[in-house]
Amino acid sequence: MRYTRISVAGRAVWGTVGEEEIELLSGSPLEQHPVDVIGSVPRAEAHWLPPVVPPVFYAVGMNYPRHIKHAGAPFPQRPEVGYRANNALTGHGSPIVKPAGVEGRFEAEPELVAVIGRTLRHATRDEAREGIFGWTIGNDISARTWQHEDRTFWRSKNSDTFKPMGPWIETDVDALAQTTTLRVNGEVRAAFPTGDMVFDPFDFIVEITRHITLQPGDVLWMGAESVCQLEPGDTVEVEISGIGVLSNPVHLEGNHH
Amino acid sequence: MRYTRISVAGRAVWGTVGEEEIELLSGSPLEQHPVDVIGSVPRAEAHWLPPVVPPVFYAVGMNYPRHIKHAGAPFPQRPEVGYRANNALTGHGSPIVKPAGVEGRFEAEPELVAVIGRTLRHATRDEAREGIFGWTIGNDISARTWQHEDRTFWRSKNSDTFKPMGPWIETDVDALAQTTTLRVNGEVRAAFPTGDMVFDPFDFIVEITRHITLQPGDVLWMGAESVCQLEPGDTVEVEISGIGVLSNPVHLEGNHH
Repeated sequence: MRYTRISVAGRAVWGTVGEEEIELLSGSPLEQHPVDVIGSVPRAEAHWLPPVVPPVFYAVGMNYPRHIKHAGAPFPQRPEVGYRANNALTGHGSPIVKPAGVEGRFEAEPELVAVIGRTLRHATRDEAREGIFGWTIGNDISARTWQHEDRTFWRSKNSDTFKPMGPWIETDVDALAQTTTLRVNGEVRAAFPTGDMVFDPFDFIVEITRHITLQPGDVLWMGAESVCQLEPGDTVEVEISGIGVLSNPVHLEGNHH
Repeated sequence: MRYTRISVAGRAVWGTVGEEEIELLSGSPLEQHPVDVIGSVPRAEAHWLPPVVPPVFYAVGMNYPRHIKHAGAPFPQRPEVGYRANNALTGHGSPIVKPAGVEGRFEAEPELVAVIGRTLRHATRDEAREGIFGWTIGNDISARTWQHEDRTFWRSKNSDTFKPMGPWIETDVDALAQTTTLRVNGEVRAAFPTGDMVFDPFDFIVEITRHITLQPGDVLWMGAESVCQLEPGDTVEVEISGIGVLSNPVHLEGNHH
């Protein structure tokens, strides 16, 4: 099943995604109570939202061997996780806005995202596997000059629109057996085995839940093997086979007061 | 007015806090629609929750001149912000759980917390001031060994229960003109002028909203001048005059499967 959220008359509504239609749901499939179909909209007219707004937004840094070797970074010895911020989330089809003040590299990273479906604490590897509701796609945008200038990632990785996620959560896929492809203006810039990770999502969940309670809706972005430069006017697509395609245009920030 | 959230029959309910009673509200005072009083509970029987679960949890690091000098850290040149995680929040009266594996310093930091009340982007200093809904109190717990061992603050500062917040949000106080006091088992361990900051909350909001949309319910923890060591069995209190007292016992983690 493919679950997402779309904007209907200014409100966020959950739905299931079919070939032509999105069937609208009375509530969140992440909660325990049953949900009803309350209508539908043509898929072509959907205004896509991030498929979930997480209670906590976890992100893995260096997690693909080729990325680590290329960066000359030390190999991680255990699964450690960082955080990103919900303000930065945006949906499939919405613009990535490059801030007017950003110089230097402005880059995309195509990432697999695990969406947690159950409350998890001291999870075994099997419980971690069963605790994942489904999988979506993230595009981790970074302004590298800010990343190097700042003490934290607050604006380099968390400015508004820097974390496109979607278009939906796929519940029926062997996510680690897929291929991740990054395209800019239709041209392939990177392609790599999605599952070629140092630590997989289940490793992370086992380690995180030694100290931390994971909640339904939490997301875990799994890192990327490759990055590529974006310019205003580009359209960037992240495809993970078996899940879907997350596509976003890149705009330059307009003027503000 | 003092707003908080308490647990009633397992559900989180907003309320206003009086001397003897907490009046329960039909909805969040942070949203635009009106709320009604739907009942009350004696204050002495309240199970206090974190007064808000923020869409984004912002935290300031070094922000008090004496703390910075004591740490030998470089003086911050501009207001930069980091993130903490909602799983770590716990309410007034609930235990801070020291994980069984933690060796070395396990420390409290008493912090002023600004609660955002409006959507803010490109805020002026006046808009920042008007955009704060009210003020609460945070106790920033850190496991220093983990902080030094790990690449990120994921478990050193974000393990479950490491971020007590409450007991309520005070909307009518000149928060920067107050005194912050840290007590352990009734003994004063630190006291400092709450407003003696390098950058104040309005400076941070102006800077953050250059790139980021702040949303109602977002919180900004403002850092501390002093820290103190905690041991299992202690009760730690953070008082900010004009706001209230946040009190939490310290427990040692039990055994798990």
